Amino acid sequence: MTVALLSIGTELTRGEIVNTNASWLASELSASGFNVLAAEALPDDLEVVAGALKRLAQTYRLVIVTGGLGPTTDDLTAAAAARAAGVELVRDESAMLAVRRRVESFGKTMNAGLEKQADFPAGAETLPNSNGTAPGFSIQLGDTPVFFLPGVPREMKRMFTEQVLPRVRPQAPNNTFQVRLRTYGLGESSIGQALEGIEAAHPGVTLGYRIQFPEVDVKVHARATSQSTAREAAMRAAEEVKSRLGDVVYGTGDESFPEIVGRALRARGWRLAVAESCTGGLVMHLLTSFPASDYLIGGAVTYANSAKSRLLGVFEDTLRGHGAVSTEVAAEMAEGARRLCECEVALSITGIAGPTGGTATKPVGLVYWGVAHPGGTIVRDRIFVGSRDEVQLAAAYAGLDLLRRTAAGLPER
Amino acid sequence: MTVALLSIGTELTRGEIVNTNASWLASELSASGFNVLAAEALPDDLEVVAGALKRLAQTYRLVIVTGGLGPTTDDLTAAAAARAAGVELVRDESAMLAVRRRVESFGKTMNAGLEKQADFPAGAETLPNSNGTAPGFSIQLGDTPVFFLPGVPREMKRMFTEQVLPRVRPQAPNNTFQVRLRTYGLGESSIGQALEGIEAAHPGVTLGYRIQFPEVDVKVHARATSQSTAREAAMRAAEEVKSRLGDVVYGTGDESFPEIVGRALRARGWRLAVAESCTGGLVMHLLTSFPASDYLIGGAVTYANSAKSRLLGVFEDTLRGHGAVSTEVAAEMAEGARRLCECEVALSITGIAGPTGGTATKPVGLVYWGVAHPGGTIVRDRIFVGSRDEVQLAAAYAGLDLLRRTAAGLPER
Repeated sequence: MTVALLSIGTELTRGEIVNTNASWLASELSASGFNVLAAEALPDDLEVVAGALKRLAQTYRLVIVTGGLGPTTDDLTAAAAARAAGVELVRDESAMLAVRRRVESFGKTMNAGLEKQADFPAGAETLPNSNGTAPGFSIQLGDTPVFFLPGVPREMKRMFTEQVLPRVRPQAPNNTFQVRLRTYGLGESSIGQALEGIEAAHPGVTLGYRIQFPEVDVKVHARATSQSTAREAAMRAAEEVKSRLGDVVYGTGDESFPEIVGRALRARGWRLAVAESCTGGLVMHLLTSFPASDYLIGGAVTYANSAKSRLLGVFEDTLRGHGAVSTEVAAEMAEGARRLCECEVALSITGIAGPTGGTATKPVGLVYWGVAHPGGTIVRDRIFVGSRDEVQLAAAYAGLDLLRRTAAGLPER
Repeated sequence: MTVALLSIGTELTRGEIVNTNASWLASELSASGFNVLAAEALPDDLEVVAGALKRLAQTYRLVIVTGGLGPTTDDLTAAAAARAAGVELVRDESAMLAVRRRVESFGKTMNAGLEKQADFPAGAETLPNSNGTAPGFSIQLGDTPVFFLPGVPREMKRMFTEQVLPRVRPQAPNNTFQVRLRTYGLGESSIGQALEGIEAAHPGVTLGYRIQFPEVDVKVHARATSQSTAREAAMRAAEEVKSRLGDVVYGTGDESFPEIVGRALRARGWRLAVAESCTGGLVMHLLTSFPASDYLIGGAVTYANSAKSRLLGVFEDTLRGHGAVSTEVAAEMAEGARRLCECEVALSITGIAGPTGGTATKPVGLVYWGVAHPGGTIVRDRIFVGSRDEVQLAAAYAGLDLLRRTAAGLPER
């Protein structure tokens, strides 16, 4: 069943707030098998909103509107709905009573603005608001039901869940299923190339890509005659995606890369120490975004050379002879952190994040990362291209990936 | 000048990501005096996008489109633009060369998907992408210029600022001016209360609030007969906002809180060491998001008690007697980091970020933070309410604010 969302409010079109209502509704509706095909935001303008309502109701089978139901003069969604339906605004006495009760329960008194919240297009069905004063309502425009909800997210979400979804769900048999595969290590275009032909081989399956630098999500979406058939089709196609991409696929759904790295360390029974220079704490911040105290002992951020020596025991001769950004220093940092924290494994990263600090032989973006483990010490290096943030993030992921592969016994890429 | 925004991507209409591109563009355009009157999101569907382009170009004087320029099969914005304009897609050899150069600079090779990124509607003007492979482009639909930008926010923002804004700004006589004040330390409602009456006292000025947890931006927007008059009005009102909020306003424009902290340390001539437990590296990550090597020596992330003792010299008796989350341990962590790194000042943070690990006397969210400086050691504590991420971020900011106030000689809040 096709759905359009319409969010009303000048604060949206001026960019003063982000339209999280639309993404929340789209996500809820998609999960229930609806096909959301448009999400529009418009300012509080009676004519414009009335016109959009008519256009959307002609094109889509269900329209859900948020915002503009409040007490102030710029709230004119009900009037726009009446205009679109070609009917008058009518005061609903029982809604008025509900508004008054709620207002008085807060020790306030009614005013014209609050009374206006009980005005609805003639023939509308009102929807009670459990979390606020403004009731919602629904009307029919032609064959299309149009629901009007408050713009306050908390009120909108509750009204949608309690009032709208039960009314519309029976009309949308859910016949879709989606698998989200998380990947790190290949760019979007290489992944696209590797997955060529999968859509053709799996009728009803579409692939989508989403970049969250430096990760790429592959979304395997299936539509079939029933949800269970769709689920089977999506799972089959996801298996083929996984077999083509190999261990570049690190997880599924909401699993995150740092969590997977932590899981690999736990599975191996390795406790971790980290020694960071150019990433400045980012690696440990990523790992500790999730509970990590069962494997992460700690580590050092050694920005200055003096800190590398004093905290990690990097030899001053090594720093002088090879420079802080070198294979030798990366190795000594990892070995120092491993010794200092008495851990099985340690990760080190040293490099030049930029935007300044590069030289002819050691350009901005040059990064060395090392893993010291019971079998020895590995150091890798690469020149990352991008802004300071990007070099830091790319370096942190490269280090974490080497750690994951070492712990899990996977080959290096 | 009226503007419509069109964001393309099934991930938007399915609610998989929030449309921050639209709010960012709307905010930038509004600040430059444009009148954004529609923001639509549509799935990657050639016919639907082509139809929307024609409709929007008929209604608005400028259309800005984001998304669908990538290398995969679901990226079909260029084809939709060609369809809307009634022209063919043509390969642009110089854009092709630019794509190839960028791809090869990453040590990768071209493929059909990447080549597709150099296909544009005949007659389009291409827009170079400084941050990615996919160039943007612009076409005319009737009298309306339509700009097509990548969906990746970082690429989109740079292309908009460097390529689009300089081209369209001359057509929008700007009679507005906006000052963005950055604040930390008060909630949105307290700020709103403190600023009551400012709009009434400054005709043409409106105040907007934007929460970027734990910060709140106050946007002072003025509209007048000319930009210089608007600028004066906005500056006057901003001065009043600053005098009412005091040093809760830490900066203006794009200045960021960690930068301001670094500036305060530099001004004082203090080198910094950091000792983090529950924030897991977040404090140093925030500071090193900007060049920091001239004041940040380094620090330790001491997640396990053993690391607190071994790296920072926290006494085992203190850990046993008071627990890792205590005034005493926070003080010893800061003093240990200061000694270890031979710095003038050190910041420590220890607490319970959650979601588990709380007890009756030490609940989730309890955090101690300390600053050790030449005049002594200060420790503060608070129970922060929120998710793990929020507790970590709130704790990091509380610590950084104490550091800033100590270095700058400002009173504590």
